[in-house]
Amino acid sequence: MTAQPIRSPVRIIGIDPGLRRTGWGVIETEGNRLVYVACGSVEPPDDLPLASRLLAIHEGLAAVLGDYRPAEAAVEQTFVNKDGVATLKLGQARGVAMLAPAMFGISVAEYAPNQVKKTVVGAGHAEKNQIQVMLKILLPKAEPPSADAADALAVAITHAHHRQSTALRLKVASL
Amino acid sequence: MTAQPIRSPVRIIGIDPGLRRTGWGVIETEGNRLVYVACGSVEPPDDLPLASRLLAIHEGLAAVLGDYRPAEAAVEQTFVNKDGVATLKLGQARGVAMLAPAMFGISVAEYAPNQVKKTVVGAGHAEKNQIQVMLKILLPKAEPPSADAADALAVAITHAHHRQSTALRLKVASL
Repeated sequence: MTAQPIRSPVRIIGIDPGLRRTGWGVIETEGNRLVYVACGSVEPPDDLPLASRLLAIHEGLAAVLGDYRPAEAAVEQTFVNKDGVATLKLGQARGVAMLAPAMFGISVAEYAPNQVKKTVVGAGHAEKNQIQVMLKILLPKAEPPSADAADALAVAITHAHHRQSTALRLKVASL
Repeated sequence: MTAQPIRSPVRIIGIDPGLRRTGWGVIETEGNRLVYVACGSVEPPDDLPLASRLLAIHEGLAAVLGDYRPAEAAVEQTFVNKDGVATLKLGQARGVAMLAPAMFGISVAEYAPNQVKKTVVGAGHAEKNQIQVMLKILLPKAEPPSADAADALAVAITHAHHRQSTALRLKVASL
């Protein structure tokens, strides 16, 4: 008879950054089970100057990190298109969104959009609504208030599935 | 005989954001005179994960803001090109660079690159080295250690020249 390794629960925050709306979702892994904790979004008033909007995103995420104290964070990699102005805006929000967990001493993993779809739905080219259907199955208690909050939960789930190999990769890269 | 209005000195930080190197420069305005205070650059080790590099930029700028306590900040607007990956990287650094002064309660003005050239050199299409020549004249004590630190001083000078009309514009916009 072999002893089962005891795996303590790990709390993960997923973040879907955006200047107009930054989604966040917190889950916990218990062995192979996923448990929903909370989700929401930070929406800075869009009539503020850019620096104030970035500050609102930072303060919103810092409050969530302080309330829920996740141990690990994950952010979706950004799909870069030819619209330079949109890419710059997203980049600015993304920089601030990645900084917040780093300021709490939490490592931040990154996942490509089709890796998130593949993990949650099983196919890299899933439609948005397929992710929402799978979220209902994987985290039945979650009622994300926005598509960004749902996406953030999907990134958190992706990290829950890949975190051990990701940690190994980071370790190997730093040797 | 009319009394001269007494203008108290205003300390300004200019920031030139970049993921590999973020330049900063602090000056003071005394009436129409500009006085050099300090400049430098923050260079996160490029083998760190993205979130750690962003944290290094934040901590570097926060230390400068804490040391020099500027009253106003200015950042160069980013020239957006078709290289989406580069734009995203710059955006991430820029978001973090704009957040730092906002966290210190300092307003952050933005200036287009050719507005900076026009203010410092007198022509919107000046070469890089013309800016450096003019910096030597305007701030003879400055010895910027990098082109980014020099650019940051140029942005600070631009703000010193435009800050009153900028403040007025911000006021009108918020009415």
